[in-house]
Amino acid sequence: MIKVGIVGGTGYTGVELLRLLVVHPNVEILAVTSRSGAGSAVADMYPNLRGFLSLPFSEPTVENLSQCEVVFFATPNGIAMDMAPQLIERGVKVIDLAADFRLQDSAVSEQWYGKSHSCVDLLDEAVYGLPEVNRERIKTARVVANPGCYPTAVQLAFLPLLEAGLVDPSMLIADAKSGVSGAGRQASVGSLLCEASESFKAYGMSGHRHLPEITQELNHQAKTPVNLTFIPHLTPMIRGIHATCYGQLTGEISAGTDAELQALFEQRYENEPFVDVMPAGSTPETRSVKGSNICRIAVHRPQGGRTVVILSVIDNLVKGAAGQAVHNMNLMCDLDEKAGLGQVPMMP
Amino acid sequence: MIKVGIVGGTGYTGVELLRLLVVHPNVEILAVTSRSGAGSAVADMYPNLRGFLSLPFSEPTVENLSQCEVVFFATPNGIAMDMAPQLIERGVKVIDLAADFRLQDSAVSEQWYGKSHSCVDLLDEAVYGLPEVNRERIKTARVVANPGCYPTAVQLAFLPLLEAGLVDPSMLIADAKSGVSGAGRQASVGSLLCEASESFKAYGMSGHRHLPEITQELNHQAKTPVNLTFIPHLTPMIRGIHATCYGQLTGEISAGTDAELQALFEQRYENEPFVDVMPAGSTPETRSVKGSNICRIAVHRPQGGRTVVILSVIDNLVKGAAGQAVHNMNLMCDLDEKAGLGQVPMMP
Amino acid sequence: MIKVGIVGGTGYTGVELLRLLVVHPNVEILAVTSRSGAGSAVADMYPNLRGFLSLPFSEPTVENLSQCEVVFFATPNGIAMDMAPQLIERGVKVIDLAADFRLQDSAVSEQWYGKSHSCVDLLDEAVYGLPEVNRERIKTARVVANPGCYPTAVQLAFLPLLEAGLVDPSMLIADAKSGVSGAGRQASVGSLLCEASESFKAYGMSGHRHLPEITQELNHQAKTPVNLTFIPHLTPMIRGIHATCYGQLTGEISAGTDAELQALFEQRYENEPFVDVMPAGSTPETRSVKGSNICRIAVHRPQGGRTVVILSVIDNLVKGAAGQAVHNMNLMCDLDEKAGLGQVPMMP
Amino acid sequence: MIKVGIVGGTGYTGVELLRLLVVHPNVEILAVTSRSGAGSAVADMYPNLRGFLSLPFSEPTVENLSQCEVVFFATPNGIAMDMAPQLIERGVKVIDLAADFRLQDSAVSEQWYGKSHSCVDLLDEAVYGLPEVNRERIKTARVVANPGCYPTAVQLAFLPLLEAGLVDPSMLIADAKSGVSGAGRQASVGSLLCEASESFKAYGMSGHRHLPEITQELNHQAKTPVNLTFIPHLTPMIRGIHATCYGQLTGEISAGTDAELQALFEQRYENEPFVDVMPAGSTPETRSVKGSNICRIAVHRPQGGRTVVILSVIDNLVKGAAGQAVHNMNLMCDLDEKAGLGQVPMMP
Repeated sequence: MIKVGIVGGTGYTGVELLRLLVVHPNVEILAVTSRSGAGSAVADMYPNLRGFLSLPFSEPTVENLSQCEVVFFATPNGIAMDMAPQLIERGVKVIDLAADFRLQDSAVSEQWYGKSHSCVDLLDEAVYGLPEVNRERIKTARVVANPGCYPTAVQLAFLPLLEAGLVDPSMLIADAKSGVSGAGRQASVGSLLCEASESFKAYGMSGHRHLPEITQELNHQAKTPVNLTFIPHLTPMIRGIHATCYGQLTGEISAGTDAELQALFEQRYENEPFVDVMPAGSTPETRSVKGSNICRIAVHRPQGGRTVVILSVIDNLVKGAAGQAVHNMNLMCDLDEKAGLGQVPMMP
Repeated sequence: MIKVGIVGGTGYTGVELLRLLVVHPNVEILAVTSRSGAGSAVADMYPNLRGFLSLPFSEPTVENLSQCEVVFFATPNGIAMDMAPQLIERGVKVIDLAADFRLQDSAVSEQWYGKSHSCVDLLDEAVYGLPEVNRERIKTARVVANPGCYPTAVQLAFLPLLEAGLVDPSMLIADAKSGVSGAGRQASVGSLLCEASESFKAYGMSGHRHLPEITQELNHQAKTPVNLTFIPHLTPMIRGIHATCYGQLTGEISAGTDAELQALFEQRYENEPFVDVMPAGSTPETRSVKGSNICRIAVHRPQGGRTVVILSVIDNLVKGAAGQAVHNMNLMCDLDEKAGLGQVPMMP
Repeated sequence: MIKVGIVGGTGYTGVELLRLLVVHPNVEILAVTSRSGAGSAVADMYPNLRGFLSLPFSEPTVENLSQCEVVFFATPNGIAMDMAPQLIERGVKVIDLAADFRLQDSAVSEQWYGKSHSCVDLLDEAVYGLPEVNRERIKTARVVANPGCYPTAVQLAFLPLLEAGLVDPSMLIADAKSGVSGAGRQASVGSLLCEASESFKAYGMSGHRHLPEITQELNHQAKTPVNLTFIPHLTPMIRGIHATCYGQLTGEISAGTDAELQALFEQRYENEPFVDVMPAGSTPETRSVKGSNICRIAVHRPQGGRTVVILSVIDNLVKGAAGQAVHNMNLMCDLDEKAGLGQVPMMP
Repeated sequence: MIKVGIVGGTGYTGVELLRLLVVHPNVEILAVTSRSGAGSAVADMYPNLRGFLSLPFSEPTVENLSQCEVVFFATPNGIAMDMAPQLIERGVKVIDLAADFRLQDSAVSEQWYGKSHSCVDLLDEAVYGLPEVNRERIKTARVVANPGCYPTAVQLAFLPLLEAGLVDPSMLIADAKSGVSGAGRQASVGSLLCEASESFKAYGMSGHRHLPEITQELNHQAKTPVNLTFIPHLTPMIRGIHATCYGQLTGEISAGTDAELQALFEQRYENEPFVDVMPAGSTPETRSVKGSNICRIAVHRPQGGRTVVILSVIDNLVKGAAGQAVHNMNLMCDLDEKAGLGQVPMMP
């Protein structure tokens, strides 16, 4: 049994990690930390865990976590970078669900997150935890930067096209829609039911923090700098991201282009356990992945034109956060990579 | 592996059965029938099952189902009674999620469901599948009448009090609230998002079909005829039932009454794997059981008065339908009764 | 034109008052105060008001408000009682949408609201602003205590029965369901979309602040002390209250009882512009009053028994708050009592 | 008073027309027709109208409608074209909220709507009822084709840029999101609360019927054929459309470009009573126009690039249907064009 700890167990990614880990066949949870909640039972805050977890929250100290083989940080940005070096030193593997290890250039990181990086060495070493791209490197990583939710959905949409050089990298658009749980469990007016339900809006127009993360990774995949317009939107539902991604095909277009695009996607992901390329003509719904680690993708070329549209859906709390983190843990710990991730999406 | 079949796999209880059964460790699904969908893949209708189930829908014939050890009917009322005799004859066990075998008096059944019963013999033999009451009889049953969703939530609320004779049986009130999935997947105007969201209403004031079912069972438990006012309400959410049940305490009331009530409920359900009596003062939320087979209950006595209020929540599609059916199957087939029912509720 | 001011214009009752008053034919809005927002445009916080209101928020000072004929307090509890005396002194009429003037016994008020009353004289003078009961007294009042949302829905349900002495006052139950806007615009975790949508729960089991208010008023109407069990529930929608009220008929019951009950309600409310007694057999939906000042009521006697069930729906922000406040202003200022309250409910 | 009739009063655009018209100061409703509902009270189907409208549904005959000055068709496609000629002949003005008179080329119309046009003469004469473009022609029209909901939101977004020739007409993208009421009140599985809530999806990928309508009109405005990729999405809410529109700026870009774009939009719409260009940096929410005839627009240029993003929100049932129809009626009947359209959006 892999002994794990969770730092910051009170947020939505924290409780989602717990939902997955309490029934993971190869995991034992040693510690769930919360500074504010220390001493009280985790299941008192999250009654869905009653009967599954009897641990209390503990203090987020290195001592409490050093018996773990893997520690997940489900914390606000800026926490993991401060604790990770000491844990790594003690042989603990770290998976950060926040953004501390995502942006490889510490200057860019500081620009977007407003805090100078406290462990640039580890940042250099950290592996970006998108298994569909970095599976082998993840297996031997000591620190994994778990991707953001939007970046997961958008990258998996553009990846096959950029790798194959089929779209113009200078004109990519990702029109992304997220459920409200992406904003976390903080008590903010904008996330109130009365503010966010029965309404729809764009946000982050001046630049969302996931933009540099997506761009950095797409640059790698395209082997050339890409130009991405990324517009996130708040959607009146709890879970789910739907990315509608637009690119301009560069090559010749023929009657067979649609079938080639479909084949490209199917081949790229045929061995990926958590990416489902849907049949031609499909429109994936976010609910079809609710509660599961699956990303479903469909590729379209409306009106037979040059614009290719990729639809990509994930559960932002699973494939976009906790599930992908468990996937990374499985890889880092040499477990079956699907272990504990067999949840059937809940529909309706 | 228990070989099972599902008749009527296109409705919400059908797909929920599939969600549970495709990952049940002791079950092999032989057939999922649908007259209208025969030939097409089940996962085409329910994309959440893509990757979990490759079966097509088949015709609902006795022949297609006779290789099964257990057949579930997730059909409209009136179907199971016509097919069950032939299946029983062939040694197949039947679990009916509809109402055909719930009302023991065929005249009452005909009155409420408008169809004369076609196999009164089996009706006499059928066991009402509420494991918390009839566990032993279910184990040897050939036909189990899976309880309705409201009846499950309401009975578990009143059961300890009626068994102990602590409330006046002539004045019970169950004010029950259900998510819209209780209305099924039929295309009806009243269940449209634009009709049922952002609104709340009572319905079935002239008599809901679950009333005679609840009354029949409470009569057994109280060992005297009860008088129940049952008011169901439609709630703007997908899943969940919240029953707020009111009774009048009959005995003497003292400072210790609250603790006695709490202890009564805890003792009654202490060995029940799927009933969670919450700590005194709790108010269970329906989301705390979403996707799971758990019923959570809290007992209150507001303002120290004679009125006792029991709050009872279930997921109507799981403990109120498919999960309870799997529980019954586990009992009938001598499996671990918790097998395949370890889903952690999804929250948020 | 009546000159009005609104103290505390940033909450939901404040913006709802503005929605009604900016198009009220007899009103001019002089001031909308907000300590935190002073100086910024009201329409910047509430873009629905863009084009209807160009005022900035101002400081909540007596000076800023003393030119008004009527001042509405849409503030937290405890504010109005501190400012009202100075305004009254200057000839300003006060309508408090909070609870400062609702509980006539200052000791009870202090017990439930945790603050000793700072102007008991005005409390004695204040009129409880339920026009269906106190219309004449409201017309000459200097201070009106605008009723709470639950109390409005529940009183209008029980009123005809208690006035006529037809139900046992010692055994009343109000099972009430409210949309989340009842909790206000405070940033609290419990009101987040991710916490409050797709779920249903009871709350306030140990005693909701609206209980003493309802009881106080029902005592008046029944001319005898009543015993009420009041259980509020949080419903996953923005607006609306549905009260399901239960009483026990005391007199003889006959075949004509249903018609008598229907006639009783119709006669009691026949001249009330904002109470709609629906035809026998109806089940009012909260959406049928959304955005309007109407209360719709239906009376039932399930299974011909002794239990009478009254269904009562209002929009908690209109008839339960801002609309009733405007109604009270109309009465206090000798306007047509329906002025500015002709909104057609929005459906769907 | 203008005497009006509504053909097809049972759908969502019908009831929304009624919500607006029952309180329109210059209108008298003579007839509301419904073949299936004839004889029953309109307010029985739509209880929000209780107290505002006492008419019963009548048969949709020319006779019943010929006393009207204006007849609205809130019918499925293909009805208005059959009745309009007879009404026009009798001097009745016709406003069709369906698509019969939107596509000027009857061949295109037949291709997308599957029915050959039955009155091509009237089609030639009909005016496309977008007042911001065709105000003067609408004033004298006998037949107005009320625009579709998506086309209204998308055209108002692109209009200033195309008129000014600032964007490449060959590469327009409209990523549009609609509430479920856009699908109408038909009982279809896809619009059930349990199917459409808590989920998000694209649809109509192979070509939505609003695509040729938008393209036809944008062609006029651009004075050159445009190429538009239009992807509609279903959003889990009742009302509202949010169009996120993307174009590529063609001219030189400088530090002043943002201010020029903002000024362009403000000037284009400065005299438009129902278009609100929001301040630079804004992100309009659909709820900020709920229940009103207002379109709110914001223009952005993310990361100072060549891609311009216009955000446009409307209430699909008002500015996208019934409200725009009333606006057209006001123009056709020489009323104040804002008459009856002063609803303040409802928020929250």
